[in-house]
Amino acid sequence: MLKEVLENVRRKEPLIHNMTNYVTVNDVANVVLAIGASPIMADDVEEVEEITSICQGLNINIGTLNKRTILAMIKAGRKANELEHPVVLDPVGVGASQLRTQTAFELIENVHFNVIKGNISEIKVLAFKQGMSHGVDANIEDTVTEENLEQSIAFVKDFACQTNSIIVVTGAIDLVVDKQRCFVIRNGEKEMSKITGTGCQLSALITAFISANEDQMLNAVAGAVCTMGLAGEIAKKNMLETDGNSTYRHRIIDAIYLMDGETLEKGAKYEIR
Amino acid sequence: MLKEVLENVRRKEPLIHNMTNYVTVNDVANVVLAIGASPIMADDVEEVEEITSICQGLNINIGTLNKRTILAMIKAGRKANELEHPVVLDPVGVGASQLRTQTAFELIENVHFNVIKGNISEIKVLAFKQGMSHGVDANIEDTVTEENLEQSIAFVKDFACQTNSIIVVTGAIDLVVDKQRCFVIRNGEKEMSKITGTGCQLSALITAFISANEDQMLNAVAGAVCTMGLAGEIAKKNMLETDGNSTYRHRIIDAIYLMDGETLEKGAKYEIR
Amino acid sequence: MLKEVLENVRRKEPLIHNMTNYVTVNDVANVVLAIGASPIMADDVEEVEEITSICQGLNINIGTLNKRTILAMIKAGRKANELEHPVVLDPVGVGASQLRTQTAFELIENVHFNVIKGNISEIKVLAFKQGMSHGVDANIEDTVTEENLEQSIAFVKDFACQTNSIIVVTGAIDLVVDKQRCFVIRNGEKEMSKITGTGCQLSALITAFISANEDQMLNAVAGAVCTMGLAGEIAKKNMLETDGNSTYRHRIIDAIYLMDGETLEKGAKYEIR
Repeated sequence: MLKEVLENVRRKEPLIHNMTNYVTVNDVANVVLAIGASPIMADDVEEVEEITSICQGLNINIGTLNKRTILAMIKAGRKANELEHPVVLDPVGVGASQLRTQTAFELIENVHFNVIKGNISEIKVLAFKQGMSHGVDANIEDTVTEENLEQSIAFVKDFACQTNSIIVVTGAIDLVVDKQRCFVIRNGEKEMSKITGTGCQLSALITAFISANEDQMLNAVAGAVCTMGLAGEIAKKNMLETDGNSTYRHRIIDAIYLMDGETLEKGAKYEIR
Repeated sequence: MLKEVLENVRRKEPLIHNMTNYVTVNDVANVVLAIGASPIMADDVEEVEEITSICQGLNINIGTLNKRTILAMIKAGRKANELEHPVVLDPVGVGASQLRTQTAFELIENVHFNVIKGNISEIKVLAFKQGMSHGVDANIEDTVTEENLEQSIAFVKDFACQTNSIIVVTGAIDLVVDKQRCFVIRNGEKEMSKITGTGCQLSALITAFISANEDQMLNAVAGAVCTMGLAGEIAKKNMLETDGNSTYRHRIIDAIYLMDGETLEKGAKYEIR
Repeated sequence: MLKEVLENVRRKEPLIHNMTNYVTVNDVANVVLAIGASPIMADDVEEVEEITSICQGLNINIGTLNKRTILAMIKAGRKANELEHPVVLDPVGVGASQLRTQTAFELIENVHFNVIKGNISEIKVLAFKQGMSHGVDANIEDTVTEENLEQSIAFVKDFACQTNSIIVVTGAIDLVVDKQRCFVIRNGEKEMSKITGTGCQLSALITAFISANEDQMLNAVAGAVCTMGLAGEIAKKNMLETDGNSTYRHRIIDAIYLMDGETLEKGAKYEIR
């Protein structure tokens, strides 16, 4: 199943419109290329509708939000909805400032997102319409663990129903949830949190996967999440003693570039609940 | 000949003003350093004239265009013209939106560019003042091939006459064309399209090469194009089995850093028509 | 002593607010993670006060200044002062344009900086309120050498008194100076100037170090400067024959990631005057 969704990305080479932050934008572009899709970046309000029209999917990330781009995000999102292109939201740091929180809610009100992806703190801010995240990382007390797994899934499923979106909660255990099903995914390495941008890369991967698999989006999102985590595991095995987080970053993108359907199918660690 | 133009860059260490996109800007800075020149980035309308005045060349790239920077690009370009500094245009994604197309034409009307560099789809949009490019990549039907080579050269030469610029068309075969001569260049590897920013890096290299070789610009541009392609070939030879597009990106810049005149002279694959 | 200041960073994991340029922002984020701190980037005037409030330190870098962010920098700086969070200024390219020079002075008037870090040309522009820097690199005639060391220290100490800041002058010899003491540091490699962003990375490191060592800021700044230089030395030892500036960049961040207190204590080359 995951083999198929990955191969669809490589075969269809979807063009992905990324409205993302300037911190990790280069990694986002390279990871989109690594998975076999094609990236375009554009955020001026005057061109985003045209740009998103020639693409197959739209990835919106509020990591370095500014007032110039908020309106552009809404316009692009609405156009993508109109054209029935898949749209993904990565509400980076929502809760850390009123601007981010208000913008996230404004986006969700104006645009239907096929997928909303965040860490548990970010998703809780969106679900409870309040709260404060610790910078761009999750609060430890919120983390999804084996102990609170049932409870966490129930909470995320509720939010998926409320938004009519697939919800992805990233962490040591990742959850990919829609109204009916939940993928509990246990790929990945803790060292991935020592690199900037693995979250932003994952949003872009998700966009590429669902744009090439519109008829099986939940599987596609699970495929993207497993690909990212498994790439982190493969990259870790390739690390030399003198390698640190900077080299690890490249080895992860390299592993995505080299990932094939069989490797993904065999290495993916998930259960469906 | 190419040996000389490369050595002039390393000897003169020109300071290059880059007004470029935020996706690949870091690679652009590092490639300018790799070739032995020095980069400065500045795009605020209030400082671009001063900044370009202390530089030896100006590189304008519209990859992530926004309204704030368009006027700054025109001001910087005019100032560079006034000071007779070489100016390069990389019209990334022209044709993909009206904003990009209009901006490219506005730039060409207001600024004389010594070099305009694009893929064949981008150059056709500029030449025919219409058309649509497939995102930031070339349409397959437009590609320069051995079969349509004569015809392609004639078309590009016409556009070179019309603009009084050196025109660079990148692809599997690269063309470097002015009114009289054409370099047909066959360096490079197809995997270079799986990395973001090789095109942006090339524009910056071209600017460095012509700024250090004002009396032989066509040779200088050909030198830059051969350097980029040859670096791609050398980097590919250095790839390990676990390396992917992210590591390839660094190996290319590394190869440029280590490139000397003899290696370039020996490895360059071009004919002059 | 340096062992202790490094270990405090790794133990306290300070959250660092970076208002920095779009050229090297990704490296800045990764180096902050490499040293064991946590980065957040935000520059919109509407959110910077809130963001800086949840952080432990603020890093302001004017490398790609634009009018949208200047006011945001002042607001963030004032808020950080109010909360007694350490604030660092990296006046990249001050003197190269009136906008940069005016902005640097405006920042210094409105915000108290615990540390101001620049090359000797940038610091001279700030001290003498005039002058022109050669792009973003120091003028050769200004360089701190063994010959003019006493004189240079006296000049920098004066400026430290005037601003009530710790002043860092980077170059072949680095100076870290407050009203009383001066660290003369001789770590580093000349190849570090062939990579974009080592200066920006250093400012971020300094912010992380002082945010975790508020009671011994001068030692903390010296620790950051030695860490960066020593990482450059270690990374150089790890270079292969086919490696160039791009790989060197990653090896430096890797070396910072792997740096422990003992390595730093043993490898740091400094004297206190």
